[in-house]
Amino acid sequence: MSKGHVLLAHGSGGKLSHDLIQDVFLRHLSNPVLDVQDDAAVWTPALLPGTRLALTTDSYVVQPLFFPGGDIGKLAVCGTVNDVAMVGAKPLYLSASFILEEGFELSILESIVQSMKSSAEEAGVEIISGDTKVVAHGEADGLYISTTGVGLLDPELKIGGAEAKPGDMVIISGTIGDHGIAVLEARGELGFQSNLESDIAPLNHLVTAMLSASKNIHVLRDPTRGGVATALNEISRQSGVGIILEEDSLPIQPAVAAACEMLGFDPLYIANEGKLLAIISQEDVENVLAVMRKTRYGENAVVIGVVEDSPHGRLLLRTGLGSTRIVDVLAGEMLPRIC
Amino acid sequence: MSKGHVLLAHGSGGKLSHDLIQDVFLRHLSNPVLDVQDDAAVWTPALLPGTRLALTTDSYVVQPLFFPGGDIGKLAVCGTVNDVAMVGAKPLYLSASFILEEGFELSILESIVQSMKSSAEEAGVEIISGDTKVVAHGEADGLYISTTGVGLLDPELKIGGAEAKPGDMVIISGTIGDHGIAVLEARGELGFQSNLESDIAPLNHLVTAMLSASKNIHVLRDPTRGGVATALNEISRQSGVGIILEEDSLPIQPAVAAACEMLGFDPLYIANEGKLLAIISQEDVENVLAVMRKTRYGENAVVIGVVEDSPHGRLLLRTGLGSTRIVDVLAGEMLPRIC
Repeated sequence: MSKGHVLLAHGSGGKLSHDLIQDVFLRHLSNPVLDVQDDAAVWTPALLPGTRLALTTDSYVVQPLFFPGGDIGKLAVCGTVNDVAMVGAKPLYLSASFILEEGFELSILESIVQSMKSSAEEAGVEIISGDTKVVAHGEADGLYISTTGVGLLDPELKIGGAEAKPGDMVIISGTIGDHGIAVLEARGELGFQSNLESDIAPLNHLVTAMLSASKNIHVLRDPTRGGVATALNEISRQSGVGIILEEDSLPIQPAVAAACEMLGFDPLYIANEGKLLAIISQEDVENVLAVMRKTRYGENAVVIGVVEDSPHGRLLLRTGLGSTRIVDVLAGEMLPRIC
Repeated sequence: MSKGHVLLAHGSGGKLSHDLIQDVFLRHLSNPVLDVQDDAAVWTPALLPGTRLALTTDSYVVQPLFFPGGDIGKLAVCGTVNDVAMVGAKPLYLSASFILEEGFELSILESIVQSMKSSAEEAGVEIISGDTKVVAHGEADGLYISTTGVGLLDPELKIGGAEAKPGDMVIISGTIGDHGIAVLEARGELGFQSNLESDIAPLNHLVTAMLSASKNIHVLRDPTRGGVATALNEISRQSGVGIILEEDSLPIQPAVAAACEMLGFDPLYIANEGKLLAIISQEDVENVLAVMRKTRYGENAVVIGVVEDSPHGRLLLRTGLGSTRIVDVLAGEMLPRIC
């Protein structure tokens, strides 16, 4: 049996999260679909040959509930829509389950539900099933939301973390770190006024545009908890490749760079909620960038790196000075309850 | 906007739960699938004509986490499997999302995950997607689990809360109130030793057997939170019929009856987690009872009432003395965190 206790870092998306998934969840629940460990599970029901469905679930515990650019409701819809989209599936339906703390204001709950409605409309999905539980005062922190998304997938597509190939290019759809720093500011932990907003957005329409421009999109992933560094580390491991980032190519807003410098954070580990990483055959990169840049959430898309044969399972950063360093998985906890 | 604050009774499954769903959730999120308000949502994806899928979600916050007959993990699998089965669908896949409190023992988490695995195996479903979030000590009570279930449905079937018809009979698959009283005992609130166990069980195989015996099963529902009284009140409203229960027919274990008498509870409102109500054409009742009684979880199945044309939307109880009283929806909170 596992020893010890749950630490905040078990929820960081970093090394301890990975260990918890391996040692507790995968160890007991292992099956071919779960073991793939992409953003959404993809399966073909035995009774529906030729059909591929995607399923993904997330709980949202962000604190505070409202922050510049969004709230927990918008996050709970977009986060799950995006996970469905990251396997190339078209998100169709969501379920939503609420854990409410006794004493929570109903008017705030209503605002959050309205926000979920707006985001669902923008994404073109419907919330078709729900549940509410109430726990006593002091047994939760306001409210937590769990959403699950179901999507439908073109049987021809093969997009996943294990599909990156040497020679592919790595694209990011826009600036990194906006969500994490906006939430920090809402917590009053920034120490200055950044005017930053979270980037939360539904990315499924962006993915649809990208899929229309290329049949050679190998990996899609939204770098949420743990940021770009964690997402690319996972992909390098899943694909058994090396990924090399160019530091000077990383799009970072000045306020995010300033906040990270002040607080000692690396923007590569800061959560995003409206960005995607795409790993694509080199010959299609210009086509894909062109369609991305015509969309609302992809206008700042750029190439930030390349996939190489080695070092296997490693993410490297080539700095502006030409040196190269390993960017490892996050070992501890950086920002609890960021999503 | 809604006024006031969340009360424990908003989670009871009774009148306040109903109001919260209507005034906050359905008011903003209304759509034809969500509005049906059965145990699981049923839909046909536009891209898959002829296919009917079922989706349902629940959060589980039961306290304590372990109790005679089960634990929160078994509950999180069986509860969601049963909701899928209650629309006549075959449950296929589950997702599971965990909210863990910092400091929670990893060995306990592992026991709960093992229990989920056993229940999933018994039900014949796989857990294919998951998520873990961690909140600080004092921001949750150990752990909460949200599960979502996906199932596949025979396109010919029409089972739902609105399908009860005058002349139908009401069947219960076994004794009522076992889960609620077992959890109360585990909390040390019973005052005597009952030796009761929760009835938690996956009911999908029982449903499959019933469907093989009759094409005239109109309603299936598992009387969980709020018990038999709440479930039948909902059905009487959805179908616009009156339902008349025969008090002397209700199967109740002596220990449950004794506990209810001591504590002033009505067993009709106590939660069950391994029982189903079925509303069936009179001519098929004997066939259905015969197959139910051959199964592990249906061996004590009996008829407990009939559906009549009136009073519309009302549940009545005919007592052993021949008098009849209205059994209303639960107004307050009886047992918080029962599931």
